[in-house]
Amino acid sequence: MTSGAPTNRTTVIRVPERGRYDRATIDAILDQGFVCHVAFALGDQPYAIPTGYVRSGDEIFVHGSAASRMIRAIEGGGAVCVTVTLVDGLVLARSAFHHSINYRSVVILGRARLVSDVSEKTEALRCFTNHVVENRWEEVRKPTAQELKATTVVAISLAESSAKTRSGPPNDDEADKAWPVWAGVIPLRVEALAPVPAEDLSASLAGFDVIRLKRR
Amino acid sequence: MTSGAPTNRTTVIRVPERGRYDRATIDAILDQGFVCHVAFALGDQPYAIPTGYVRSGDEIFVHGSAASRMIRAIEGGGAVCVTVTLVDGLVLARSAFHHSINYRSVVILGRARLVSDVSEKTEALRCFTNHVVENRWEEVRKPTAQELKATTVVAISLAESSAKTRSGPPNDDEADKAWPVWAGVIPLRVEALAPVPAEDLSASLAGFDVIRLKRR
Repeated sequence: MTSGAPTNRTTVIRVPERGRYDRATIDAILDQGFVCHVAFALGDQPYAIPTGYVRSGDEIFVHGSAASRMIRAIEGGGAVCVTVTLVDGLVLARSAFHHSINYRSVVILGRARLVSDVSEKTEALRCFTNHVVENRWEEVRKPTAQELKATTVVAISLAESSAKTRSGPPNDDEADKAWPVWAGVIPLRVEALAPVPAEDLSASLAGFDVIRLKRR
Repeated sequence: MTSGAPTNRTTVIRVPERGRYDRATIDAILDQGFVCHVAFALGDQPYAIPTGYVRSGDEIFVHGSAASRMIRAIEGGGAVCVTVTLVDGLVLARSAFHHSINYRSVVILGRARLVSDVSEKTEALRCFTNHVVENRWEEVRKPTAQELKATTVVAISLAESSAKTRSGPPNDDEADKAWPVWAGVIPLRVEALAPVPAEDLSASLAGFDVIRLKRR
């Protein structure tokens, strides 16, 4: 496990006590989320594009169509940033100024390593599938050689990464504590609703058990 | 209302039928979300940083501490990208390859315009506050001159923006339809849990009514 020591570029500047640099904190955030935003630049224009990801050891994997703008932009190894953000709550203070959001985020700076070895690529896709639904890979049809070729997988090291988190109640100024308005936190979470079977699904198949959704 | 006509840079390349360029679609996504990712570059390193936002007419407002790395990087007017992503569901197909995510996202390319006029800045902060909780601004303590000074607000035009969405069931290949596994969609949504009052909140104040959370 890499150290995760902060660099100039990953040190949290604003509200530094919200910065976290230990891999346990970083990994817990990465393992709960499944959508990241990948930042890259084309010329002088930066982009932030949402996509799925999974952590595997000291790297995260990102995948996409070999034809996608994002994949083509990053597979060559230019500098990228991958950010994962979990929104935990709305913080309602007595003052407009102290309103905030409770969140946990991870920022990873690095360069994409193209995963070209077929067995490593297949293992990455297995990790993707099972990251969201436990044991899903084991029960679905596996990728064909053509599907593997149409999918590009890249890995980005966690060596230069940091977390930033806010939790807990509003930080109102003492002078505002008597302001006559409700103050506190509205916790938010991602909820799974009742599964919607495909219209052409065989009636003989059992329903989907949402307990298989990991960490939700 | 600007046209929102796609440019080379905002045209959806991969799965082009998922691209949407009409302002009604773009505005609906922007008005439901409240956390965006702002991409900017420092030298050759791109960053994607999560932050709050609100749409107001043909622009979105982003704000932050005048001391933040993100604000300092973008307030000068360099190229930025603001991305809003709403995750609507997990798409479970019979094949690993066709697994997907239902989502609605907006990508805005532009340059930040510093909002320095005090009345425009105050109006932007009112929009921020009321974007998440209806009429919150009207009941809280308003910003002091010093708080206004400590907060930087920038506006980014929606002139170059596009949406990309996926909805509906898995797109399995015909040959896979009989594969003996559950297939369909697990809808996801952001749920508000019971409000947690600040510990020092006066018992005489009424509880918080979550119906005031807009669009949740």
